[in-house]
Amino acid sequence: MSEQDTQAFLSWLKTQIPLLNHMGLGELTFEQDALTLHAALAPNINDKGTGFGGSLATLATITGWSWVTLLLRRQDLACDVVIRDSSLTYLAPITGDFYATARVADGADIDAFLARLAEKGRARLALQVEVCQEGQVALTMQGNYVALKNRTGKPH
Amino acid sequence: MSEQDTQAFLSWLKTQIPLLNHMGLGELTFEQDALTLHAALAPNINDKGTGFGGSLATLATITGWSWVTLLLRRQDLACDVVIRDSSLTYLAPITGDFYATARVADGADIDAFLARLAEKGRARLALQVEVCQEGQVALTMQGNYVALKNRTGKPH
Repeated sequence: MSEQDTQAFLSWLKTQIPLLNHMGLGELTFEQDALTLHAALAPNINDKGTGFGGSLATLATITGWSWVTLLLRRQDLACDVVIRDSSLTYLAPITGDFYATARVADGADIDAFLARLAEKGRARLALQVEVCQEGQVALTMQGNYVALKNRTGKPH
Repeated sequence: MSEQDTQAFLSWLKTQIPLLNHMGLGELTFEQDALTLHAALAPNINDKGTGFGGSLATLATITGWSWVTLLLRRQDLACDVVIRDSSLTYLAPITGDFYATARVADGADIDAFLARLAEKGRARLALQVEVCQEGQVALTMQGNYVALKNRTGKPH
């Protein structure tokens, strides 16, 4: 996906989800089936001066959501995407700027997801998201996202 | 806990975790072993005009964290509290102002937690947090929090 397209997507996302304007979000890239979204530490610190767990969970959640949403846009599919459940493990404190990377989870099948969505109008996909600082994993999240075809027929 | 004390705690929390200043947080109460923290919908909406999953996860995370922190303050214990892992299930969209309530999880033992903390300087406690709108549960979170005695000896 071009830098212009990802920048436009992130700008749109910030108009839809006001909280994202307060997290120091930086570059968003979507290449080779991995979507990465960066964030600055300063607006996301906690009482210990490290990354706030809520901020890490939020970055992981929106990164996975963006992955599914952009996959569907590539297919010209107009869907709502919602998170159904997630499991998070906090491995290490974050002490600097950080980023989340989302990929399809091991064993999840994108083609089966798209086929089910076409047939049923609703389908679920499991993603694996990691929050990292300089390549070190600080949080892992496994999340199930549900796509629902909407009636307008327009991507939104 | 008196309203004055909970208000002072929430004010302090907002100085420590900047993101919490952008979530429309309202009343915090801590009574009969349940801590409840309210939030307005408007600053927490998503692209569908309902509660953003990241906001719900953040409110649940900080509500559980506050529960453990205030339990330890009641005991005059100076500890850092961190979240270790969490499992979240999103049950229904949020369409109005909402709140999270944290309690100790079924089967978790506060006395054993405090005894282990005294002995080892580190202990884990499982909490159950629900995010609700007008009494209807929209999200459940089971979270494990770890308390670590710090060296300063002062609650912070």
